[in-house]
Amino acid sequence: MELCPYLVVLDPAGRKGRWKELFGNGKPVFLEIGAGKGQFICGVSEQLPDVNFLGMEKYDSVLLRAMQRLTATPRQNALLVLGEAEKLLDYFDENEVERLYLNFSDPWSKKCYTKRRLTHAIFLEKYRQLLSPSGEIHMKTDNRKFFEFTLQQMNEYGMVFDCINLDLHAEEPESNIRTEYEVSRSAGGATIYRLVSRFR
Amino acid sequence: MELCPYLVVLDPAGRKGRWKELFGNGKPVFLEIGAGKGQFICGVSEQLPDVNFLGMEKYDSVLLRAMQRLTATPRQNALLVLGEAEKLLDYFDENEVERLYLNFSDPWSKKCYTKRRLTHAIFLEKYRQLLSPSGEIHMKTDNRKFFEFTLQQMNEYGMVFDCINLDLHAEEPESNIRTEYEVSRSAGGATIYRLVSRFR
Repeated sequence: MELCPYLVVLDPAGRKGRWKELFGNGKPVFLEIGAGKGQFICGVSEQLPDVNFLGMEKYDSVLLRAMQRLTATPRQNALLVLGEAEKLLDYFDENEVERLYLNFSDPWSKKCYTKRRLTHAIFLEKYRQLLSPSGEIHMKTDNRKFFEFTLQQMNEYGMVFDCINLDLHAEEPESNIRTEYEVSRSAGGATIYRLVSRFR
Repeated sequence: MELCPYLVVLDPAGRKGRWKELFGNGKPVFLEIGAGKGQFICGVSEQLPDVNFLGMEKYDSVLLRAMQRLTATPRQNALLVLGEAEKLLDYFDENEVERLYLNFSDPWSKKCYTKRRLTHAIFLEKYRQLLSPSGEIHMKTDNRKFFEFTLQQMNEYGMVFDCINLDLHAEEPESNIRTEYEVSRSAGGATIYRLVSRFR
């Protein structure tokens, strides 16, 4: 991975406050937490050329797969980041991100792991800091309990819901980009939930 | 209906501020808006004997069916009310109700009828006034869009969600009382949504 320093940011803490320099323009930065094999970041960066995308992933073996995908069809507005959500505030300054994507994050279903869920108030507080005032969180999951939990946490935190969709594929917007996981879960009959929220 | 004045309250406005007198005790008053054929009020008044129940219905033909059901197994803690949600504040004083049930209310799906939905902010404002500070709203529906709308309206209004269930029958609590409509819709494969909310 050391061979492609411009495609993968291996030291995100060193980039804090200077992400836009990396893209060489002033366009907004959208961040996906848990980019997985990169299908979403590939699709969305093509769909929205006037946005700079960062796909963050904590497992380097998974990140490698995303790299292969991005390298196959190179683009100027998408980069991968090796990093973990717990350390987001080491990576990003206040207001440095315009939008956050949480696609099918680990639901951490066991009660003892509640605090690891990426929509727990602990993480919302981090997101609030790094997102610009009008910044949005776009979240999708097929895990019902995780979605119920998320609605309650965000409501409790005083967030606004711009959109709640309790069966995304029933009326799928053309703009929806299905991840690999989403395709396979939906084919198996799972319901896909989605929301867009903001901080007040 | 004039023949059973103690089972059906035909002039709810005349009862304002004096509902507990009717039951002859100081127990809390729970109100169902849209009692339909009375299945829910029958079940819940048996389940919770220490609560006074009011089942409000605006259509007298439907109310008649509920009367037949209640008369078959008389109870001291349940009364029917002929009335409509729009006029709730004519019927109830501030803090006079401890809990509100909205079971499978008309979703008023067309956009031009949004304001008729019983979870529109217009109605939430009424509920806020008649409910006691710790009062709860218990809502069930099988209409996905109506539930999405309700979550957004209540969140926007600053309410707290004590419970959100996006598939009630997947893990149905023993205490759940199915209405006739709920039984038939669920048998047809519909998902049942439920929430419990409070004003801050």
